[in-house]
Amino acid sequence: MKRIRVCVVGYGNVGQEAVECIKHAPDMDLAGVVEIVDVDDPKVPVVKHVDCLEDVDVAILAIPSRAVPKVAPEYLAKGINTVDGFDIHGDSMVSLRKQLDECAKQSGRTAVIGAGWDPGTDSVIRMLFMAIAPQGITYTNFGPGMSMGHSVAARAIPGMKDAISLTLPVGYGQHKRDVYVEVEDPAQFDEIAQKIKEDPYFVNDSTRVTLVDDVGKLKVMGHGVLIERMGASGSAHNQRLELKMILSNPSATAQVMVSAARASTRLEPGCYALAEIPPIDLLPGDRENLIHDLV
Amino acid sequence: MKRIRVCVVGYGNVGQEAVECIKHAPDMDLAGVVEIVDVDDPKVPVVKHVDCLEDVDVAILAIPSRAVPKVAPEYLAKGINTVDGFDIHGDSMVSLRKQLDECAKQSGRTAVIGAGWDPGTDSVIRMLFMAIAPQGITYTNFGPGMSMGHSVAARAIPGMKDAISLTLPVGYGQHKRDVYVEVEDPAQFDEIAQKIKEDPYFVNDSTRVTLVDDVGKLKVMGHGVLIERMGASGSAHNQRLELKMILSNPSATAQVMVSAARASTRLEPGCYALAEIPPIDLLPGDRENLIHDLV
Repeated sequence: MKRIRVCVVGYGNVGQEAVECIKHAPDMDLAGVVEIVDVDDPKVPVVKHVDCLEDVDVAILAIPSRAVPKVAPEYLAKGINTVDGFDIHGDSMVSLRKQLDECAKQSGRTAVIGAGWDPGTDSVIRMLFMAIAPQGITYTNFGPGMSMGHSVAARAIPGMKDAISLTLPVGYGQHKRDVYVEVEDPAQFDEIAQKIKEDPYFVNDSTRVTLVDDVGKLKVMGHGVLIERMGASGSAHNQRLELKMILSNPSATAQVMVSAARASTRLEPGCYALAEIPPIDLLPGDRENLIHDLV
Repeated sequence: MKRIRVCVVGYGNVGQEAVECIKHAPDMDLAGVVEIVDVDDPKVPVVKHVDCLEDVDVAILAIPSRAVPKVAPEYLAKGINTVDGFDIHGDSMVSLRKQLDECAKQSGRTAVIGAGWDPGTDSVIRMLFMAIAPQGITYTNFGPGMSMGHSVAARAIPGMKDAISLTLPVGYGQHKRDVYVEVEDPAQFDEIAQKIKEDPYFVNDSTRVTLVDDVGKLKVMGHGVLIERMGASGSAHNQRLELKMILSNPSATAQVMVSAARASTRLEPGCYALAEIPPIDLLPGDRENLIHDLV
């Protein structure tokens, strides 16, 4: 069995964990890390451009979602499969899939989009729950955990030194925001707190803002999710299905991307959401053995 | 979009629920029920042989597991996809897959095996958990709920009038058996209880046997499962993943079979365990809409 050569694009929280996950994978080798920012890490070969790496089968794009529609086609055009963690649900996901499907088919390669835990494995769970109990209601509850998007939005407010925003589950798919801020001038706290609450990221949620001396001390990468479905199958109207995960966020995201990188080498050319991939293809090893042990 | 014509083979607990699930499916029609035993149900067309039904795309085999290796090939040879709830894990599952793969490819049709909640969707969950956290331990805890296999084994003991065996979870993948018996002669109870405990089905588990007047009053189709994984992804060693379901057993089994019947019409010829099927193919409707709404 040919080993899979994987490169990691971006060396932030997720990129660093992706390197760890690849090192643990029995069927993969790290081709290298592609990072434009200067990185000094003796443990991994960091290059400025993918062309400096040889024989790359798959690129894990550990980059911001908004950069994916520009970067992924460049890799696909070079004959490299891509895996991204694109996390903008709805129309954006559908149009990314359409765009990359065309690129991937042109170069005879594959792209896996939205490969994280949500979207990603959570999306698969939501579909499985509907396959077991087609009528009913599903609630997805996130947290407690840091939201990168909300933290960045809070940090962008003038007079802010640093900020993090936690997502707190209230129950049944509803959430509160818990924002910790370090400001230039404590006298301006009330005004800054008001601006956060009026920001489009926060305006629809109940938001608490707390002034602290050192936001750095509060940063933690733990996260979680609870997916609940109350459903019906056939004549039974009390089917209760529940998925609960307590996760180190960047590690889980990186690992799902690495598992998707493996699957990308087993698919026909095209672009796939995680739910379009046979789950068995995410795992290393022989199919019959997996069926023997896990089915 | 062509509607899918499905027949149900067997009209026991699962077969009856499969009929209900097909009636609720927006993209399916019930071709009829095939049942050798005399059944008088004005709600559904019951026939003695599948040849009496027209244009059947898929047969749901709601029959005992041991009958599947004989019955499924007959349907495949007629050009009908099959879905079964074969539940003997390990070698038997692997050899059934090999056998039906050959039959299915010969007639250009598909067979989905082990389509229930365990094996079936639980198997998919176990694989997804490994894709998120490849190192670690998974515990599957069943119940409380009635075990058909154990109940049948208890009923076969001489002097027994009726019996049911419940599976009770003790935790971390271990189980106790709770058997309720109605006997011909109450004076023989101790002897009968001993025979149950020595039966191969029970000999490895802690088993309690209770004498009752009427086993019928205790029969209930509720069941449940808790799958727990304590895993590691990358450098994170405290990933906790948990699936919990409380189910009406025959309804959930039947519904997964019906969802798999849909998927069977979207696959290349061959035999598949549920984990080899893209989860999105289990659901009705347009792929792009599902990605828009659920990913």
